[in-house]
Amino acid sequence: MTLTGKMTIGSKKIMGDQKVVHAINPHTNEVLDPPYAGANQEQLEEACALAHQAFASYRKTSSNQRADFLQAIGEEIMALGDALVERAMQETGLPQMRIEGERGRTVGQLNLFASNLRDGLTELPKIDTALPERAPLPRPDLRLSYLPLGPVAVFGASNFPLAFSVAGGDTASALAAGCPVIVKAHSAHPGTAELVASAIITAAKRCDMPEGVFSLLFGSGSLVGQGLVAHPNIKAVGFTGSRAGGLALMSTAQNRPEPIPVYAEMSSINPVVIMPGVLGSDIGTLAAGFCTSLQMGAGQFCTNPGLVLAVDSSKLDEFVNQCAEIINSATSQTMLTPGIHAAYQNGVGALVENPDIAMVSEGEISGGHNQCTPYLFSTSADVFLQEKQAREEIFGSSSLVVRCKDSAQLLDVIDSLEGQLTGTIHMGSDDTTQDAQQILDHLELRVGRVLFNGYPTGVEVSHAMVHGGPFPATSDSRTTSVGSNAIERFLRPVCYQNTPASLLPQSLRDEHSGMQLVNGKYQQS
Amino acid sequence: MTLTGKMTIGSKKIMGDQKVVHAINPHTNEVLDPPYAGANQEQLEEACALAHQAFASYRKTSSNQRADFLQAIGEEIMALGDALVERAMQETGLPQMRIEGERGRTVGQLNLFASNLRDGLTELPKIDTALPERAPLPRPDLRLSYLPLGPVAVFGASNFPLAFSVAGGDTASALAAGCPVIVKAHSAHPGTAELVASAIITAAKRCDMPEGVFSLLFGSGSLVGQGLVAHPNIKAVGFTGSRAGGLALMSTAQNRPEPIPVYAEMSSINPVVIMPGVLGSDIGTLAAGFCTSLQMGAGQFCTNPGLVLAVDSSKLDEFVNQCAEIINSATSQTMLTPGIHAAYQNGVGALVENPDIAMVSEGEISGGHNQCTPYLFSTSADVFLQEKQAREEIFGSSSLVVRCKDSAQLLDVIDSLEGQLTGTIHMGSDDTTQDAQQILDHLELRVGRVLFNGYPTGVEVSHAMVHGGPFPATSDSRTTSVGSNAIERFLRPVCYQNTPASLLPQSLRDEHSGMQLVNGKYQQS
Repeated sequence: MTLTGKMTIGSKKIMGDQKVVHAINPHTNEVLDPPYAGANQEQLEEACALAHQAFASYRKTSSNQRADFLQAIGEEIMALGDALVERAMQETGLPQMRIEGERGRTVGQLNLFASNLRDGLTELPKIDTALPERAPLPRPDLRLSYLPLGPVAVFGASNFPLAFSVAGGDTASALAAGCPVIVKAHSAHPGTAELVASAIITAAKRCDMPEGVFSLLFGSGSLVGQGLVAHPNIKAVGFTGSRAGGLALMSTAQNRPEPIPVYAEMSSINPVVIMPGVLGSDIGTLAAGFCTSLQMGAGQFCTNPGLVLAVDSSKLDEFVNQCAEIINSATSQTMLTPGIHAAYQNGVGALVENPDIAMVSEGEISGGHNQCTPYLFSTSADVFLQEKQAREEIFGSSSLVVRCKDSAQLLDVIDSLEGQLTGTIHMGSDDTTQDAQQILDHLELRVGRVLFNGYPTGVEVSHAMVHGGPFPATSDSRTTSVGSNAIERFLRPVCYQNTPASLLPQSLRDEHSGMQLVNGKYQQS
Repeated sequence: MTLTGKMTIGSKKIMGDQKVVHAINPHTNEVLDPPYAGANQEQLEEACALAHQAFASYRKTSSNQRADFLQAIGEEIMALGDALVERAMQETGLPQMRIEGERGRTVGQLNLFASNLRDGLTELPKIDTALPERAPLPRPDLRLSYLPLGPVAVFGASNFPLAFSVAGGDTASALAAGCPVIVKAHSAHPGTAELVASAIITAAKRCDMPEGVFSLLFGSGSLVGQGLVAHPNIKAVGFTGSRAGGLALMSTAQNRPEPIPVYAEMSSINPVVIMPGVLGSDIGTLAAGFCTSLQMGAGQFCTNPGLVLAVDSSKLDEFVNQCAEIINSATSQTMLTPGIHAAYQNGVGALVENPDIAMVSEGEISGGHNQCTPYLFSTSADVFLQEKQAREEIFGSSSLVVRCKDSAQLLDVIDSLEGQLTGTIHMGSDDTTQDAQQILDHLELRVGRVLFNGYPTGVEVSHAMVHGGPFPATSDSRTTSVGSNAIERFLRPVCYQNTPASLLPQSLRDEHSGMQLVNGKYQQS
C-alpha cells in the first residue's frame, strides 16, 4: 500500500486542507513523505455524523459479530506485513524487535476482547426474578444488562505507535463495547496511522460493519482534538499523553451541555521501594534489573521507574554505586521525537542544576540526533518532600533515588506522592511481612498496580491487569485502559423491568448460555 | 432521645455557630424546634480530618465487620421507634404509612449491602495465574481486587428523609465499600437527620468502628456543601437534588487540584409511551394506574411520570378524558416544603399560561398550606419539539400528554429527550414486537431503566436495579444509586502482581471461599 496522506472518514479516503504535518525520522531528523494535512470543520462533522449513524446498527451487532470484526482487524494488521513495521520504525526510531513485539501485543489485545465477547466474559448479566406473591408489594422481573455509550474519540499516543494508537487498547475496547471510534492520529506517526486505519477499514468491509464505525482524522489537538471532545455526537474519550493535554480535554468534556467521561492517562513516576532485606544479598542482580527496566525503550514508558525510595544505609550506597557503574557505561538511545527529546533535556537539565539533587551517574553523551542519555540522581527525603521539581515526571531514562532517614519517613514520602500507575516493593527474605504490609498499606492507596520483586515496565494484557490509578496517573481511577476490564469504560448499565422475553437483549434471556447472577446467585446455564 | 440541634462530628455532638435553620411542618407552616446552626470552617475541617484518619483502619475492616456495622445501623434506626416516625412526619408532611415504609426500605438497603458483603457478592476478584514457562516472556501472577476511594460526602435529599438521606442508599453503599461518610443534612428535616445520626453513632460504638467513620453536618450548600466537595480529604460525592445544585458540585469537584467523582441525581421527567394496542382494551384501568402513579407522594418522586407520549387518536382522547375525570376529582396533598410548593406553583403556572399547551384537568384547589393540586396538560409533538419549557421537570403531580402525528414523530420526540431515570412502554396484545422493538431501540438510549406495562414510581432495591441514566438524570450514567451495584461508585480496581500470599487481600487468596474469575473462568471455591 502506498501512503497517500489522506484521512479515513467512514469508508472514504479524504485529504485534509488544514495545517500540514510531516513525520520525522528521529534517527536522522529527515522529513518523511507524504505530508498529512489536518481535517477541516466540515470533515470533522462528517466523521461525527457517520459515527452517530453507525452507532444505531453497530450497537445491535451480536457479540460474535464484533468478535469477528476485532479478529479481522488483527489479521489485516498482520497482512500489512513489513511495510507497517518499516514505516513505524522510521517514524519512531524504535527497533524492529520492539515494533514487531508491539504489533503482537496490539493483535493480542484485539483477540483478547474478541475471545471475551465470544465467551460472554464482558459484563455479568443480573436477573432478579418476579415475586408476584410478595407482600405488601410484588417484585417485578428485573434484568440488568449493559449498553455502549456511543461514539468514542480516541487520541493516539506518541510512545506506542501501535498498541496505544489507531487500533490500540482504547479502540479495541470501545469497538468491543459496541461504540464506533474516531481516532485523532498522533502527529509523530501519521504514516503508521494511515496504514493501520486501512487495515481497520478492510476488516470493516470484510465483516459488513456499518459505514462510520471507524474514522481517522489528522490535525492539531486544539482544533481537531478539542473539536471532537466538544462534539455532541461523541460520548466518551480515550487519551494517553501529557498532563496539560489531558486536563484540557477533561475541562472541555466537563463543560459541554452534556458532560462526557474522559479516560486520560497522563503522568506517573512509578516509585520503586527497596526494603532493607533485599539489599542484604545479591545487590548486583537488583541493580542490573533496575537499570534494564530504566533504559528499556529509552525510558519512554508510562511505567518507567522514575523514583527509588529506600531507607539510607551503606548497603543502599552500594546499590546506587552499582547502578552508577552500569549507567556510566550505558549507550544512548534515540527518542521518539525531537519534541520529546527537548523536553527530556530540559527535565534532566533542571535536576543537574539543582544544588539539592546529586547527579549520581550519566550515560553516553552521543552526537547523534535526539539521543537519550540515561541519568541517575539522588537526594534526601527532606529535599524530596519540599521540592516539587523532584516529583515531576521526566519522560525518558532518568530516575531519582530518595534516601529516607528511617521507615517512618519512607511512609511520609509515599504519602506525599500523587497518584501513580504502579508502585513496586522489593522485599528480601529477611524483611518481615509486617514491615512489608505497612509499606503496602500506604503504597496501594497511591497506585493502580502494586508489584513485588519485579519492575513496572511490561504490562500484561489479561483479565486481572489494572493500568490505571489515582489522579494524575489517570483522570478516572475506577477504570483500567489495559486488559479485559477496559471495556467497562464504554458501557453503562440498563435495567429491563417486566420486559417481554422477545424484546430482551440476548444475554438477559432465560435460555442464554453463559454466566448470569440470578437472585444473587451465580448461575451458569 | 431529645433533639439537641447539635451536629455529629466523630463521636461528639457539637453545636454549630453559623446560620440557623428550623424545620417547618408543611401542613401548618409551624416552625419546629430546636434550631439547627450550620458548621463553621473549623468544624468542617475536623469532620474531614476524622474521616481521613478513620479511613486508614475502616478500609481494613473485614467484609463481615462492615456487614455487622450496617446491620447494627438498621437495628438502631428501628430502636428509635415512633420518635423517628413522628419527627419525620412533622418535618415532611408525609403520612405515617409512607414514613414507616421508607424506614423499612432504608433498613432493607443496609441489610442488602450487609448480606452482599457476607456472601462475597460485591466485586468479582480476578486472578491470572503465573505462566513462568511462557515464551518469549513469562507471565507474572496477577490478582485484581478493589479498594475504597476514601471519605465520601453525602448530600441528603428533600424527598426521601430516610431512604436517600443520612443513612440512605449513598451512605449504605459508601460504608459497605469501606469509605467513611460525612453527611450534609438536608435543611428540610434536620431533626430526622439528628435522630438517624445518633443511631449510626450508637451502631459504630457497638461495632467498635473508628472515630470519624461517620459525621453529620448542618449548614448551607454554598458553604458546607461546597466546602466538603472542595476538601482534599473527600474522595467522592453522592448527591440527590436539583440540576443547578448538582452542576455546581460537579464543577467544584472537577476544578480541584485532584478531581473527584460526583454522583449527582438531578432531574428526570420519566416518559411513558402508550402504544396503540393498549388503548384497544381496558382504557379505564390504564388511566387509573397512571393517575395513581402520578399522584403518589404528591408526585415528589424522581421517577414521577411527567410525560405521556402517544400517537394521536380518538382512543387517546378517551384515555386523556378518563385521566381528566380522575384528576378533576382528586384531592390535593401537602408538599414537602414551602420552597418545593412554590416551585411547583411556578412550574404549573407557566404551563397554564402557555397558549400552546392545553390544561386538560386540575384537581382540588385547597386552602391548606403547601398543597399540591394535580394537573394534566396536553400538547402536540410539534409544540413539544420546539418548547424547552415543556421538557423541564415540574417536581410534583403534574404530567404532560404529547400527541404525536405518527409513530415516526413519536420516535423523534423520544430522540429529543435528555437523559432520564426511567422510560415506560405500555404495549397491548395487538401491538407487534417489531413496533415495540423500534420504540425500545430509541427509548433505551435515553434511560437507566426501561419498564413495560407498569409505572416508574417504586424502585426495587435489588441486584438488577439501575437507578441512574444519561445526563442530566445523573452525572454519571455508568453507575446506579440504588441496588447492589451502587457500591461500585466508591471502589477502584487495584492489581497485585507477584504479591506474597500473606500480603494479599483476603478475597484474592487461593483459599478464599467465594466466586473468583481465574484465568478467565468463573470458579467457586
